[in-house]
Amino acid sequence: MSLIEPIVLKGFRDSLPEQEIPKKKIMRALEDQFQSYGFVPIDTPALEYTSVLLGKGGGETDKQIFHFTDNGGREVAMRFDLTVPFARFLAAHNANLALPFKRYHINKVWRGENPQKGRYREFIQCDFDIVGADNAESDFEILSLMDSSFKMLQVGGYTFHVAHRGLFNAFLEFNGIKEHSVEILRTVDKLRKIGKDAVIEQLTEITSSKEKAERICEYIERPENETFEEGIKRLEALAGGENEASIRLTEIHDLLKALGIDEHFILDPSITRGLDYYTGIVYETFLTDCPQIGSVCSGGRYNNLASLYTKEHLPGVGSSIGLDRLLAALEELKSPLLADSSSADIVILHRPGEEKNAMKVARELREKGIKVDVYLTPEKKAKQQYDYAAKNRIRYALSFKEDGSYSLKNLETREITNTTSVSDICSQIAR
Amino acid sequence: MSLIEPIVLKGFRDSLPEQEIPKKKIMRALEDQFQSYGFVPIDTPALEYTSVLLGKGGGETDKQIFHFTDNGGREVAMRFDLTVPFARFLAAHNANLALPFKRYHINKVWRGENPQKGRYREFIQCDFDIVGADNAESDFEILSLMDSSFKMLQVGGYTFHVAHRGLFNAFLEFNGIKEHSVEILRTVDKLRKIGKDAVIEQLTEITSSKEKAERICEYIERPENETFEEGIKRLEALAGGENEASIRLTEIHDLLKALGIDEHFILDPSITRGLDYYTGIVYETFLTDCPQIGSVCSGGRYNNLASLYTKEHLPGVGSSIGLDRLLAALEELKSPLLADSSSADIVILHRPGEEKNAMKVARELREKGIKVDVYLTPEKKAKQQYDYAAKNRIRYALSFKEDGSYSLKNLETREITNTTSVSDICSQIAR
Repeated sequence: MSLIEPIVLKGFRDSLPEQEIPKKKIMRALEDQFQSYGFVPIDTPALEYTSVLLGKGGGETDKQIFHFTDNGGREVAMRFDLTVPFARFLAAHNANLALPFKRYHINKVWRGENPQKGRYREFIQCDFDIVGADNAESDFEILSLMDSSFKMLQVGGYTFHVAHRGLFNAFLEFNGIKEHSVEILRTVDKLRKIGKDAVIEQLTEITSSKEKAERICEYIERPENETFEEGIKRLEALAGGENEASIRLTEIHDLLKALGIDEHFILDPSITRGLDYYTGIVYETFLTDCPQIGSVCSGGRYNNLASLYTKEHLPGVGSSIGLDRLLAALEELKSPLLADSSSADIVILHRPGEEKNAMKVARELREKGIKVDVYLTPEKKAKQQYDYAAKNRIRYALSFKEDGSYSLKNLETREITNTTSVSDICSQIAR
Repeated sequence: MSLIEPIVLKGFRDSLPEQEIPKKKIMRALEDQFQSYGFVPIDTPALEYTSVLLGKGGGETDKQIFHFTDNGGREVAMRFDLTVPFARFLAAHNANLALPFKRYHINKVWRGENPQKGRYREFIQCDFDIVGADNAESDFEILSLMDSSFKMLQVGGYTFHVAHRGLFNAFLEFNGIKEHSVEILRTVDKLRKIGKDAVIEQLTEITSSKEKAERICEYIERPENETFEEGIKRLEALAGGENEASIRLTEIHDLLKALGIDEHFILDPSITRGLDYYTGIVYETFLTDCPQIGSVCSGGRYNNLASLYTKEHLPGVGSSIGLDRLLAALEELKSPLLADSSSADIVILHRPGEEKNAMKVARELREKGIKVDVYLTPEKKAKQQYDYAAKNRIRYALSFKEDGSYSLKNLETREITNTTSVSDICSQIAR
């Protein structure tokens, strides 16, 4: 029989232990952060009705979505983000949830887009949201959780770029160009990609006025070293004075200052976030030492997310971490969090006939909280056994001496200790 | 605009926090166990080539599989278990893996089968395997890990029913009925479901001999209180004497005894596991106080798993926990592991204007490792705030007194403590 080639689909990939160990570690660390803020996990199906995920039409199904007709004749699709399923979830379970509802959701999504460098058709999203409160305190709580998370991730410098969609709308209205807001937002969103000149050109076309195009640029360009407070004042002036949005921004910033965590936040009016559903603050996160990777965490306030599914008013604010992108950055920045990707603290090497001793000391060490790998083909040569330890990035190897004592080898320093005590081994490893 | 009904597909379901919190807890506890044995995590794509998952034919695609043609014209399918992708993974990455390779994989799989009570079209599998060693030590290591896991899960009594496929084959050969082994295995596997009489009837038909059918039953029926050693002797006698398989069983049992963990293992020759790919030991796990739920962890040795994809000889032994079934059992048995499904240790209630104080004390408590939820709509009435705490199963509520001190309420005992110290609050909660 001829063999089947063990290939995966274009845009998909296996996760080997050296990738999966750090990924799991980061996911766990993020979950611990979310939980310390009282956020709870949920999950939703990978597969849903296409009409539920894409809206009523369904006719012109997006090419970027994996969708098909199932064996029961239903039109189904694999989820392409965690936001739409969350909106559907809220509408379905609203009555059973205690509001404000703080949830996180870390899981896979699928998109059919053409794979590019660093872009895959299957990837993990990590979303956290607060639903059921429209106030500065909730906006602050999401920003505070983001700050705690990035502090925990040990990525070096990071900056949260914050803007307010409502303030930008007030500015557009004050300048009589509100009707073009969607196109303007989309153009402004491209500033980082296409540069100022191209943006002005496009905006001139949209607003039919070079002066207005320049005024928009004046709005979105943050003067270097402008403080958050100065920024609010400047934007208020451009938008015709204080308004609901600028007051909200001030309140949020007051909370950040009061808690002593305003250091990493700047007001950056060029942040607009292309997506239509944002209605309040919006933000993106950039890593000082890894700017080329782009925003690693972004989101904002939306006050009508579940309106496709329910008449219940469910205002929310949330954020999403691009886990693959974040992992790439952590690797590049050599985050101490990823320093140890070993499969175990120690490997027990032994000769045939020593199985029982090996298993006994493994058990004793495991009971003391040590991660112990027993090498399970003792007939192999010593070189193969040490190669195994190296490939699994294990730091210590234990073997048995003829007098029954243990020989503990530090595989980095090659230092060898002889001992008869399991506690001794534990304290060596813990060092 | 009319609303879209927020429904999920038949056989699929949302996981609400009260389900997802315990699920995550159990998954984490199992991962900790796997890691303490030096097992490493991997992941594979949810979507693969249909021909890779189902074998070359592809023509008669299984109805139980979600499969379709993607936008690029490829025949693709959602994985229906974690075993086939693991075999494909091994063939693809064999050269980069250190053997013996010990991996675990906890993730979703999808099947189109008709949903029954407790059966879903999307569910989580939890597999752990050792590949690259064919010896008693590896068989033992999997059994030992199973034993440690069930001890950790605090499910009360549990028994691992172990048999050996090779010993059964030797018995069939000795009795001249080897040619019918597949049908015989399938029939024996139904013993628990259809009862002894029906099994004898079917076996008589298969072997064309009532005497042989009865001899098979003699083999598979374990006399009450038969010890593991007695069982091996009895089966050896029925199979024409000692053989490779019975020697292996003896070695495995010796290791279990030497490690003092033989208590939960019985030799039960009625366990055959229907699947063709098993070649050595096979096992199932039953919970003493929850027998109706069936086996919650099963597996065995397979020595040709990846042979569809590679000529490399990759013997393995592994096990799979049915996570949903296990969770149902843990719930029914009121495992202490699931006792706490609260979203946080404490909720901070406060009035409008006290936001900064609330956030400050939340931060201090979080820094001390306490999970803190701040109630984010302070304008709501006290009753709603306490309802929120109850719905989230939170045990403590903190509020502010006019003199600036804290009022800490135990929501179970309704006891109230007044304090000015955050450390005080921590030690109260830790009690």
